[in-house]
Amino acid sequence: MASEFDLIAKHFAKPAAPGQLGVGDDCALFSIPPGRQVATSTDLLVEGRHFYPDVDPRALGHKALAVNLSDLAAMGAQPVGCLLGLALPQADDAWLAAFAQGFHDLASAAGCPLIGGDTTRSPRLLTLSITVFGSVEPAKALRRDAARAGDDIWVSGELGAADIAYRLLDGQLPADPQRLAAVRRALEWPAPQLALGMALAGVAHAAIDISDGLLQDLGHILDLSRVGAELHYGMLPVASALDGLDEATRRRAVLGGGDVYELCFTAAPAVRAQVLLAAGEAGVRVSRVGRITADSGLLVLDETGRPLPDLPQGFDHFA
Amino acid sequence: MASEFDLIAKHFAKPAAPGQLGVGDDCALFSIPPGRQVATSTDLLVEGRHFYPDVDPRALGHKALAVNLSDLAAMGAQPVGCLLGLALPQADDAWLAAFAQGFHDLASAAGCPLIGGDTTRSPRLLTLSITVFGSVEPAKALRRDAARAGDDIWVSGELGAADIAYRLLDGQLPADPQRLAAVRRALEWPAPQLALGMALAGVAHAAIDISDGLLQDLGHILDLSRVGAELHYGMLPVASALDGLDEATRRRAVLGGGDVYELCFTAAPAVRAQVLLAAGEAGVRVSRVGRITADSGLLVLDETGRPLPDLPQGFDHFA
Repeated sequence: MASEFDLIAKHFAKPAAPGQLGVGDDCALFSIPPGRQVATSTDLLVEGRHFYPDVDPRALGHKALAVNLSDLAAMGAQPVGCLLGLALPQADDAWLAAFAQGFHDLASAAGCPLIGGDTTRSPRLLTLSITVFGSVEPAKALRRDAARAGDDIWVSGELGAADIAYRLLDGQLPADPQRLAAVRRALEWPAPQLALGMALAGVAHAAIDISDGLLQDLGHILDLSRVGAELHYGMLPVASALDGLDEATRRRAVLGGGDVYELCFTAAPAVRAQVLLAAGEAGVRVSRVGRITADSGLLVLDETGRPLPDLPQGFDHFA
Repeated sequence: MASEFDLIAKHFAKPAAPGQLGVGDDCALFSIPPGRQVATSTDLLVEGRHFYPDVDPRALGHKALAVNLSDLAAMGAQPVGCLLGLALPQADDAWLAAFAQGFHDLASAAGCPLIGGDTTRSPRLLTLSITVFGSVEPAKALRRDAARAGDDIWVSGELGAADIAYRLLDGQLPADPQRLAAVRRALEWPAPQLALGMALAGVAHAAIDISDGLLQDLGHILDLSRVGAELHYGMLPVASALDGLDEATRRRAVLGGGDVYELCFTAAPAVRAQVLLAAGEAGVRVSRVGRITADSGLLVLDETGRPLPDLPQGFDHFA
């Protein structure tokens, strides 16, 4: 079996950018522009929990980085670089090459080069840890505690497809190859909304990426900002691939479905035009779906203005 | 079972330092002083590979952070903060409380507060990922590629104890409770040489922390600096707890034993007094053990100046 150092050199070592120190030293070194803070986030992904053993390695390399870049997007941060930890039950050259390709393709597209990491053998269970770095002006960072009563609530992109893909693959919904083909990409190749996040920095107030479901993730904004919200169910952007599903399945996917990696954000009504301009620059659809209220609590209203009963819960790793 | 959010809040959320944003947002935010770069390193630790399932959780919390802080020390960086990823087969409150105590005690002593992380369930195998951040003046960073022919080679602290502890616990050496008591702390409670690393920044040339064994780790400096080295075996600082062991076991522990977390560094002979002053300020013993040569290759010389044959190899996770 190849040595750790050979594996790292072959698949993961890339020349560092000028002024940075990359893979191969005790630490990676990087600079950020004056007046900005470092934004950082980490995720741990475990085989059997976050992905299947037979996952396409190129899709896994993409998604492992994408979900972390999505945290930078939700902060309004510009990517700087990333670290990758890999614990492998075995060192399979073809698997690693495909994984590295998926990872590097997105890293390169996002301007977030791999600058360091750790490779080790795992007794069982492939495990990945990703840490991303970005930079942001402190006053413009999109914090979860910054929503204000009266703010509009916005959602980027479309909701529901990743959840339906997960339920089809997991056997929770009856087999439907045509629908699976329409939703699978949303689950396996999520696109972090980096351009939108950066364009919203200094425009929007609070933001979060939808990883655990719209209601649960918006709930974090409400808790930390000590406010409430009214969402209009009919204004939510539902993926057209959900057409024809029964209403309960659809509603659960839209309100409670995780793995979305779109942004939910709040902004003052006075900056609606700026929000739409930011979205236009980023090439992303945004939908205004409700408003922040001074009262605590989260209501989802139907088209007649009545609260929906029996709201689905989000995803909690230990629930 | 407690929810993910409860667990994080109970054991890991601490108030962020002024101007920083800690646990609970999409990203943690931190600043570094003007003119400095961010130094960062990550490690992935897997049950059954890096620690035993019955490890003392407080010691594990300490060591998981210590091995990463050691990478900051080897760069000459000042700690800023850290991230913790935890994949748990179950959420055991007492275990987590002890782990968090070991982790926070060292984080606090080192000035490296926990500012973010990720908690998830693992189907099997407790897995930890730690990422540390520090800051360093780019021109003073202790890089592996900075050794120069003629430099002295230095080692901090003492060598060999952690390796003997590991071999006693693993059954590779006959049971010896008295010796185990003398060496066990070196394996389970390593002390990262942060003060020494910071004091050496701008004084020493190259540095590395001894995680995989002196010969292998010094070898990385030699490879990246395109130089060679002569070590004097008789000048190496051997832990007194190794007294009475046979010479082969002793030599393997001193030259090839990993998990040491002392610094091996190179510095010009002209700054010997400054090196000793830095060590004195840090309260750490340093030993001058050899010199960097223009020729490639690594020789270990006995007391008569003859090269030792059959040098032990270091630790390679995939060898």
